[in-house]
Amino acid sequence: MISAQEKLSASNKDLKFVCVGLDPDINKFPSHLRSISNPILEFNSHIIEATQEFAAAYKLNFAFYEREGISGFETLKKTIELIPDDILVIADAKRGDIGNSSRMYAKSVYEFFNCDAVTVNPYMGEDSISPFLEYHEKLNFILVLTSNPGANDFEKLKLEDGSFVFQKVCRKVEMINKNKNCGIVFGATRLNELEDNFELFKTLPVLLPGVGAQGGDMNGIVNVFKKNKKSDFLINVSRSILYKSAKKDFAEAAGNELKSMNDIIQKLFNS
Amino acid sequence: MISAQEKLSASNKDLKFVCVGLDPDINKFPSHLRSISNPILEFNSHIIEATQEFAAAYKLNFAFYEREGISGFETLKKTIELIPDDILVIADAKRGDIGNSSRMYAKSVYEFFNCDAVTVNPYMGEDSISPFLEYHEKLNFILVLTSNPGANDFEKLKLEDGSFVFQKVCRKVEMINKNKNCGIVFGATRLNELEDNFELFKTLPVLLPGVGAQGGDMNGIVNVFKKNKKSDFLINVSRSILYKSAKKDFAEAAGNELKSMNDIIQKLFNS
Repeated sequence: MISAQEKLSASNKDLKFVCVGLDPDINKFPSHLRSISNPILEFNSHIIEATQEFAAAYKLNFAFYEREGISGFETLKKTIELIPDDILVIADAKRGDIGNSSRMYAKSVYEFFNCDAVTVNPYMGEDSISPFLEYHEKLNFILVLTSNPGANDFEKLKLEDGSFVFQKVCRKVEMINKNKNCGIVFGATRLNELEDNFELFKTLPVLLPGVGAQGGDMNGIVNVFKKNKKSDFLINVSRSILYKSAKKDFAEAAGNELKSMNDIIQKLFNS
Repeated sequence: MISAQEKLSASNKDLKFVCVGLDPDINKFPSHLRSISNPILEFNSHIIEATQEFAAAYKLNFAFYEREGISGFETLKKTIELIPDDILVIADAKRGDIGNSSRMYAKSVYEFFNCDAVTVNPYMGEDSISPFLEYHEKLNFILVLTSNPGANDFEKLKLEDGSFVFQKVCRKVEMINKNKNCGIVFGATRLNELEDNFELFKTLPVLLPGVGAQGGDMNGIVNVFKKNKKSDFLINVSRSILYKSAKKDFAEAAGNELKSMNDIIQKLFNS
């Protein structure tokens, strides 16, 4: 068993930073896939095959599977089994509840679905996060500042000491990271805040969703990390890779798109 | 189809306020159930039968089912099908994500699992909540102040204007409640805050978990609502009802315990 920390570090050492978001949307699939018995699994299988050489990680947004009900969970499990053992698998499930319940959510993503990492919602505080941290070989990415407009509603509220809620969350994550199995989620659309708050997450791996359809600037992000000499991060890309082509060559096109993103990032990092 | 609002209001009109939390823990089951093929479904089925006369609602904490993987989701679905149509079913799933994903979570709990209500985590802001609100006949209970110690970490942070994060969340919920399908979750362990903040949720149904094992004071809560002449609330009780007896009479004991809680509350409310 390779630990999540080892998987991430091996990818980053090879200058792989793009996490492929496996967020399947049948309406965007090539038409020849729509009529078969399990189009999502078939689609995922081709995408994984075509992208595994350059993928730093795979992230599965549970919502895309849960909407299909029980058959969706079956597809989720089968998809995870198709991912090579040495690549990090992130359960983007945004779970979090009182301790007793968080323990069960952790059991589900780590023991049943065999994921290497999970995204955790911190609203309910430390004891809702800590059961996930009992899995020392896993990585727990806690939401700090998200990519959506709603981040302004509560995450960016200003506290009486002049700091923001999301900064408090980030400080807490660093404090409880005793087993070195915490990371944070920071929206790729938040370039200014990323730069301004870099000191807060020096020791924490960063997962950045929101590049592509949501408008995050990949080059800008890479430059911030390069400037700060930090290389434990993942930029999640979903739609721009998965749906690069809607024809029979969709998997090949996805692989090529990932490779070209990878090339750009490597050049930026080495320049 | 009876709407969630109608179900809640019918229960409350009959002075039923106890929501039975169907949080099955096999280790606490009577021994004669442990050896059968699906002990959780069997347990739930007897509990539902014995409690439906006095249950104001049923709440299913998804974590207790998810930990069993796919078979757990099957049990969840089958359990929900056993609940009489006129009783409110709450998916205690604490979901919440960017809009596109929240829409899929809503589809899962409302269209696949056919629940009447869901608990929603507000950390990511309004656009993570609003897809749930598109279901006008459902009830969306947004976490405001939770029952666990971790509520102090972020929910109770003090803002620059002197208010608390959880109060900001509550105000936002009231603001976005255009379809009259929002409620809030307020920990039963937070009696002082419940009393002090009553003005904030005058128009919102309140779900109160944390009575029993977590230490919430049922009588205290009922008195606060009575004093304020508000009757749209649900007190969730799980362990003290489900595991009242660990013998063959577990279902009968659960029914009696619920009835006696109900009697106490009715007396308090009518006194």
